[in-house]
Amino acid sequence: MRDFTLTQEQIIATCAPVRTQGATSEKIRGLQSLDKAQAGDVSFLGNSAYEAQVTTSNASILILPKDFQAAPKEGQLQLFCTNASLAFARVCGLVERQLYPKALPGIHPSAIVDRDAQVHPDAHIGALCVIGAHAQVHKGATLHAGVYIGAYASVGAGTELKPQVKVMEDCVIGERCIVHAGAVIGSDGYGFEFNAGKFEKVPQIGNVIVESDVEIGANTTVDRARFGSTRIGAGSKLDNLVQIAHNVNIGCNCLLVAQTGIAGSSILEDYVVMGGQSGVGGHVRVGAQTQVAAQSAVLSSVPGKQKLSGTPAQELRDTYRQEVLKRKLPELNKRVSEIEEQLKKIPQK
Amino acid sequence: MRDFTLTQEQIIATCAPVRTQGATSEKIRGLQSLDKAQAGDVSFLGNSAYEAQVTTSNASILILPKDFQAAPKEGQLQLFCTNASLAFARVCGLVERQLYPKALPGIHPSAIVDRDAQVHPDAHIGALCVIGAHAQVHKGATLHAGVYIGAYASVGAGTELKPQVKVMEDCVIGERCIVHAGAVIGSDGYGFEFNAGKFEKVPQIGNVIVESDVEIGANTTVDRARFGSTRIGAGSKLDNLVQIAHNVNIGCNCLLVAQTGIAGSSILEDYVVMGGQSGVGGHVRVGAQTQVAAQSAVLSSVPGKQKLSGTPAQELRDTYRQEVLKRKLPELNKRVSEIEEQLKKIPQK
Amino acid sequence: MRDFTLTQEQIIATCAPVRTQGATSEKIRGLQSLDKAQAGDVSFLGNSAYEAQVTTSNASILILPKDFQAAPKEGQLQLFCTNASLAFARVCGLVERQLYPKALPGIHPSAIVDRDAQVHPDAHIGALCVIGAHAQVHKGATLHAGVYIGAYASVGAGTELKPQVKVMEDCVIGERCIVHAGAVIGSDGYGFEFNAGKFEKVPQIGNVIVESDVEIGANTTVDRARFGSTRIGAGSKLDNLVQIAHNVNIGCNCLLVAQTGIAGSSILEDYVVMGGQSGVGGHVRVGAQTQVAAQSAVLSSVPGKQKLSGTPAQELRDTYRQEVLKRKLPELNKRVSEIEEQLKKIPQK
Repeated sequence: MRDFTLTQEQIIATCAPVRTQGATSEKIRGLQSLDKAQAGDVSFLGNSAYEAQVTTSNASILILPKDFQAAPKEGQLQLFCTNASLAFARVCGLVERQLYPKALPGIHPSAIVDRDAQVHPDAHIGALCVIGAHAQVHKGATLHAGVYIGAYASVGAGTELKPQVKVMEDCVIGERCIVHAGAVIGSDGYGFEFNAGKFEKVPQIGNVIVESDVEIGANTTVDRARFGSTRIGAGSKLDNLVQIAHNVNIGCNCLLVAQTGIAGSSILEDYVVMGGQSGVGGHVRVGAQTQVAAQSAVLSSVPGKQKLSGTPAQELRDTYRQEVLKRKLPELNKRVSEIEEQLKKIPQK
Repeated sequence: MRDFTLTQEQIIATCAPVRTQGATSEKIRGLQSLDKAQAGDVSFLGNSAYEAQVTTSNASILILPKDFQAAPKEGQLQLFCTNASLAFARVCGLVERQLYPKALPGIHPSAIVDRDAQVHPDAHIGALCVIGAHAQVHKGATLHAGVYIGAYASVGAGTELKPQVKVMEDCVIGERCIVHAGAVIGSDGYGFEFNAGKFEKVPQIGNVIVESDVEIGANTTVDRARFGSTRIGAGSKLDNLVQIAHNVNIGCNCLLVAQTGIAGSSILEDYVVMGGQSGVGGHVRVGAQTQVAAQSAVLSSVPGKQKLSGTPAQELRDTYRQEVLKRKLPELNKRVSEIEEQLKKIPQK
Repeated sequence: MRDFTLTQEQIIATCAPVRTQGATSEKIRGLQSLDKAQAGDVSFLGNSAYEAQVTTSNASILILPKDFQAAPKEGQLQLFCTNASLAFARVCGLVERQLYPKALPGIHPSAIVDRDAQVHPDAHIGALCVIGAHAQVHKGATLHAGVYIGAYASVGAGTELKPQVKVMEDCVIGERCIVHAGAVIGSDGYGFEFNAGKFEKVPQIGNVIVESDVEIGANTTVDRARFGSTRIGAGSKLDNLVQIAHNVNIGCNCLLVAQTGIAGSSILEDYVVMGGQSGVGGHVRVGAQTQVAAQSAVLSSVPGKQKLSGTPAQELRDTYRQEVLKRKLPELNKRVSEIEEQLKKIPQK
């Protein structure tokens, strides 16, 4: 990491601790885990598994859960916070703003902006961006180098599009979204009609609507609807290399871990969590707050608040129990063979 | 969707119905599902599950299977078609051509075209495309912004390459293909020789041949051959984020759903269907018309016309039956325990 | 493949055979498998499965394992090598250097290089590259068209970045690496804190360090660390569409086949091999030389030198045995039913 410095006052203002203990005269110049922290570092207890490391940590500032009991070392400041992980994340945010300042407003001379596009004067359009006719880029949006915005597409206020993101024609990105490098929003849905021995393309003339506060990972693909819209609900977070098919409707505040795939027309209600490399079949509804384990696949609709795993997905505890027994199949098989042997020795009626 | 209008005559000419019933005076300004359609919309019955919605639909034009029986509402035109879904898809095509007209011929001044490249005057080369020496772009091809065409590569007549598609050196794309944004055709195959504790790269000096009428999804990757060619057969359709390894031979009219992976040197005969997140191991032949379920993996060669699932893939009905029994393992285990208990009570010989 | 020619002397110098047999007067103009080779081709025996094809092969030069016994045809030269596959690969390298000569040093006029970037005069910067402030491109590095290098990032000597690779801010690529088209190095890790019903982003202010001699596949994504570094160890080879999460530590000389995903903070020790579409859960350590089968997932730490498969992964031979028995579940179930029937007929105590 490049050099940075934070003052004690900045950190305290950001963490808003319910109480403090000890004191330090160090400027903060590093972020570290408890065991590796040295003078000048800020560290935190985010996971109770590491509690034992608190008292031996050499960090100058420790961010701790509000009820945690520990005496500070000499020259150590302890900040007790309602959510220590969140407080530490916000301190990281201070560093981020120092090392990665927001790009300045303006259009790079190498960008190619259609005369009929509307770019807010407070937006940043990076080098070699291409912006189509009637596209809109709203206030404070940042388009890094090589972003493509199709005709009639729209990028909301405060949204950041990383290098070479592609937002295809007519698609809408909400406010305060982050789309990572190489992601494609609005590629054609996968639809064909079989006719005379060949697959004839079904035109995909809908769009994608990404609501506000959504994050979309690198090289993820979100297909436009056949007609109507594919939707990514407000606050949902998609990891890298995720595939969202046409006409999918992702609710609000869903988490889709890397390499997940959602097939056409399926619905994820709010707060659904999909583990890595998991999937949802076509035309399926996944109820709110349901969690699907990594590499599992939901092939028919399920209610909310489930914890599912397996292909096809079932209750996690059932999968676990069956998996244990599957691993004992050699033993079960042997038991049955022994019973058969024993039965041979028993006189039959 | 942006505004559009279709006349009754256009729609009838496109659908070529075997008979019609009723009449409407509305111009068509929307496409909708049966239940949501209003005056001015065209809708269709593509799936018998929705038959009940036909009589209550308010669509101005209904596209129906040719033998379907229903009386039109006042001001409603019914078109009875041999393939209602296909007819509707073609109506969508009318809208598509209105909203997304083909790009005009010509080379954008920002494109960088090697002096030894051959670009047909009727092709469209978008902003910031890069076209290498001796590359060929044929009649009516459309390269959207930021497409990369390597030296000696070729793009067939009428083919459309979406933004930032990369066609690497020496690769050949056939006629009337569509390649979606971010796809890479002709990346190096994955091959190494282990030597003196390290992996030494095996040069990948073959190419990729994509035949005609192929569609390739967003961010999909197709590797060039070690030597010779990786082939994607005519009419095959690859979804997003699919991986095709070196020297693979995909037959004609295959369907590969999103996130599928085909390992090196494998062969898919014609009309193979691979479900989402499925795979084929290396040096495997999959017979014509075989269908592989989502998340399954074919690890050894299989004949044609199979329906397979599981890892390693076996007949779908076997997987299903075993899965049912696996889910009853707790019960089976209990039955065996009860038998063992019972046997203890039986006098032995 | 385009035309090329190799002389006998070049091939012998490259293969360094332990002995030779026969002679040919042909110039080499092709590379072929044993069965397809004709006069003018070089071929090789890399897999004992093809031994029978050696004596009938029409290749002008045959590269064979050093202890292989075969008489050359008239006009055929046999080269006996310690590692025939490797020798052939190096001959392919001769062809590669002829057909794909290294790009010349210099900066394409369309590239946008920040005035504070440092580009070695012996590096090649292709068309439409964007290089940020304080970035470094070292001697002999080749950046093909459309590569993005963020501020403070570094590209090592002799490294080749294919079209539209993105190396994000502060990331470091070592020497002699190859990164294929569309790959993203340094996208944000996937981290959120749940707060007041929403997911608040955890800033990802670390970087990625790719050591020397690494190859990274097309459209693969490697996330930057939350803080500290995500590491790809020297000599490791990542295939296409692989996902590496934040703070992962990949050892040296690992192989990660296409579509593999490694979750956050996990460690792969040296020489780990991950099959296609496989995964490793978060905070897991995989011991050196362990091999994980395709579509499997390692969900808890495992020692080295294991051969694993399944989800969760276990010893390959256990998975195999259980899978055989799972496929016999219908039979086992029937056996238990028969026992139950038989027991009914036995008088109880």
